[in-house]
Amino acid sequence: MLRVLSVMLFAHVAFSQRDSSFIRTIYNEALLHGQSYENLRSLCKDVGNRLSGSTGAAMAVNWGEQKLRNYGFDSVYLEPVMVPHWERGTKEKAWAQGKDGQIFQLKLLALGGSIGTEGTLSGELKLFPSLEALQQASVSEVSGKIVFINQAMDETYISTLNAYGDAFPIRGNGAVEASKKGAKAVIIRSLASGIDDFPHTGTMHYEDSISKIPAAAISTQGAEQLANLLKTQPIQFFMEMDCKNLPPSPSYNVIAELRGSQFPKQIITVGGHLDSWDVGEGAHDDGAGIVHSMEALRLLNVLNYKPIHTIRVVFFMNEENGNQGGKAYAKWVSDRHEQAIAAIESDLGGYTPEGFSCDCSDQDYQFLTGLRELYAPYQVHLFEKGHSGVDISPLHSYFAAIPLYGFLPDSQRYFSVHHSENDVFEHVNKRELELGCGAIASLLYLIDQQKEPTKSGKKRH
Amino acid sequence: MLRVLSVMLFAHVAFSQRDSSFIRTIYNEALLHGQSYENLRSLCKDVGNRLSGSTGAAMAVNWGEQKLRNYGFDSVYLEPVMVPHWERGTKEKAWAQGKDGQIFQLKLLALGGSIGTEGTLSGELKLFPSLEALQQASVSEVSGKIVFINQAMDETYISTLNAYGDAFPIRGNGAVEASKKGAKAVIIRSLASGIDDFPHTGTMHYEDSISKIPAAAISTQGAEQLANLLKTQPIQFFMEMDCKNLPPSPSYNVIAELRGSQFPKQIITVGGHLDSWDVGEGAHDDGAGIVHSMEALRLLNVLNYKPIHTIRVVFFMNEENGNQGGKAYAKWVSDRHEQAIAAIESDLGGYTPEGFSCDCSDQDYQFLTGLRELYAPYQVHLFEKGHSGVDISPLHSYFAAIPLYGFLPDSQRYFSVHHSENDVFEHVNKRELELGCGAIASLLYLIDQQKEPTKSGKKRH
Repeated sequence: MLRVLSVMLFAHVAFSQRDSSFIRTIYNEALLHGQSYENLRSLCKDVGNRLSGSTGAAMAVNWGEQKLRNYGFDSVYLEPVMVPHWERGTKEKAWAQGKDGQIFQLKLLALGGSIGTEGTLSGELKLFPSLEALQQASVSEVSGKIVFINQAMDETYISTLNAYGDAFPIRGNGAVEASKKGAKAVIIRSLASGIDDFPHTGTMHYEDSISKIPAAAISTQGAEQLANLLKTQPIQFFMEMDCKNLPPSPSYNVIAELRGSQFPKQIITVGGHLDSWDVGEGAHDDGAGIVHSMEALRLLNVLNYKPIHTIRVVFFMNEENGNQGGKAYAKWVSDRHEQAIAAIESDLGGYTPEGFSCDCSDQDYQFLTGLRELYAPYQVHLFEKGHSGVDISPLHSYFAAIPLYGFLPDSQRYFSVHHSENDVFEHVNKRELELGCGAIASLLYLIDQQKEPTKSGKKRH
Repeated sequence: MLRVLSVMLFAHVAFSQRDSSFIRTIYNEALLHGQSYENLRSLCKDVGNRLSGSTGAAMAVNWGEQKLRNYGFDSVYLEPVMVPHWERGTKEKAWAQGKDGQIFQLKLLALGGSIGTEGTLSGELKLFPSLEALQQASVSEVSGKIVFINQAMDETYISTLNAYGDAFPIRGNGAVEASKKGAKAVIIRSLASGIDDFPHTGTMHYEDSISKIPAAAISTQGAEQLANLLKTQPIQFFMEMDCKNLPPSPSYNVIAELRGSQFPKQIITVGGHLDSWDVGEGAHDDGAGIVHSMEALRLLNVLNYKPIHTIRVVFFMNEENGNQGGKAYAKWVSDRHEQAIAAIESDLGGYTPEGFSCDCSDQDYQFLTGLRELYAPYQVHLFEKGHSGVDISPLHSYFAAIPLYGFLPDSQRYFSVHHSENDVFEHVNKRELELGCGAIASLLYLIDQQKEPTKSGKKRH
């Protein structure tokens, strides 16, 4: 049924000279009078990092609300969301000591959600080259030890996103798999491109039936150092972390919209996530997505575009460790008896735009690939089926056939900075950021301009 | 005649599974065991910047020769070239004083080739928003003044190369145009993207019949500052530079090759330029091109590829201010009774590969666009007719129909660093650089593998 509808709707979308002219106008405004770069500077420097439950996150909500109100959009909403609250604490140290006696310190960064060590935790370090190797190990090999998973991101992938996807389970499941076999703690090689001395954090999980053990990342350089030493001698590892989980905390999604002239209850959503990890400034992840989305709405507004459907920007809370904002927003749309007809997420950084992925039907994918010519002058060339974004994915639960688009910037530098101290404003390039705003604003316009709005927003529940 | 030949040669090139497998192998080697990044570090840090005629350039020649010999290529040549020799000197300062008395210093950078000021030079500052406006001004508006050309690069171009091309004449011709109307000196707004406080140098020219006047760049931020002050009051400008032109100096192109098994006298050239400006480290311009080219040859060699035609890497001397290396190389090939059948230049930085331009016939362009599918997995997508590179262009004078390819990386960041103190190794990303090596090595392979070698190397002279 839905498939048939889609065929009708997207089969022969044609775009006009007026469309290509308007896109050129959008890009000119973004490049000549863009506000995304200054907004990102402000989010990074005036607010700083902003993990769910922190005061930084609360300030980011205030910042977002203020920005959206100042732009004079039609409505601004704060949608309450309960979010997990984890704190890194004040102690985070690690040392290795070889059998020969030599001692050296390593940079350590607790994984988000980890328990602390309750003072000093020490044990023999046991290296596994992959999560799979750990899963295949016997209890006697692991019990009482500190497991070190030294699985590197595969550098031969052209898109670093694929390499990250492959390596992700060592961070997400390392603690559970190590604990099943009696490990005291787990440390992982950071999920990062290349070799440097910055550890990268990120979310991990526990299972109720498995003992919780501390979990942390070391830098890729630290991992190489340990692995080399382990070739010649055993290592005793010492670590101290006082991170902890606190009760859930109230927070908000921050939302604004330009109301649709013909179909105000049909919603095109664009967003990124307002929370970030608690190191660096969350500049690329996902300050870029926040300012991309806000600027896209500003561009349409300042160019006096009157949307046919409602176009709504959402600053999602808690993408990094729970996705409570994404889940709450999808329910909120449904509860308001609105139809979510399309959504775009930017959560892969502020680099040069490559294209868009689409978690969608074949017919919606045809719509997307039909934009190839319109986007060619802007060197936006990659249109592929695939994952869209964590925050917008829950819309699928309420609006089964909604097309979900993910903004795809160049991925080469992303995992050098992602979830680390290096994710700061200084690593964002103004033109690259502004080109992203142009690409996203143009897609909002093109979706809105489809002659016959999709009915894919039809509610399943 | 040549056109007909080309049609025959390129009409139906088909590539096989073996080709796509070999390209994958090239990329894997570049990404897993690449040496380009370490080579670039060495060129930037062990040698440093290397303007033609400087000791740095001589050391770069030694460095290049040593590197190429160590790789064990079939032959290494040093081709003598006489190059211009300009030195910046030790004094380079500028101040502005408003009518109201306030004084401030500005960062100043002499343009390459400029004469010095012979002590303090001062005069009223006369702003022109463009070179055209200066050309249209009367002698009385300009005479005795210091001309300030405040023409910004047009940020609305998607490729910054186009913006640079438009603005280039203010640097190249500003001194001649200002001097024609009696100016004492000319300062230009740096040819740079965005606003910062780093002036960018680059070559300029004089004409024999026009008095030579000093020419320098100020930063984009300095230019904005002056332009704002000039809205309210006249400015007296003071400058001192002791740069000078010295007699031409002997130098070298550094050349190595893998000899062709079937057609050793048919040459496929790949290169970048070894000289750089005398600020920063010449990392993107054109250290990247040097290591791209050397690594491309190394990749083919280490993968035990035996080329059909001779594949030759050339480190050209003196691209920045004279192109003596490019001209000498073309003549050298001709003098050796070789046929230059194709050439690739990398001189646009070490950023993520976008594609290749081709200064070539329609038929050679068809060959290039025929590679689209092979390159798709590597996100190399831009195949366009256009300028190839300064160094390889003189090959056209001897080999009329030779296809000349220019490597096209992402251009967004290039003019933030180009010809400035910011062009340092730290601004080069390892993966981006390595992907460029893969793209260029693959093109060398694909050109070499054409079933029937082009006869476009037929000598015109």
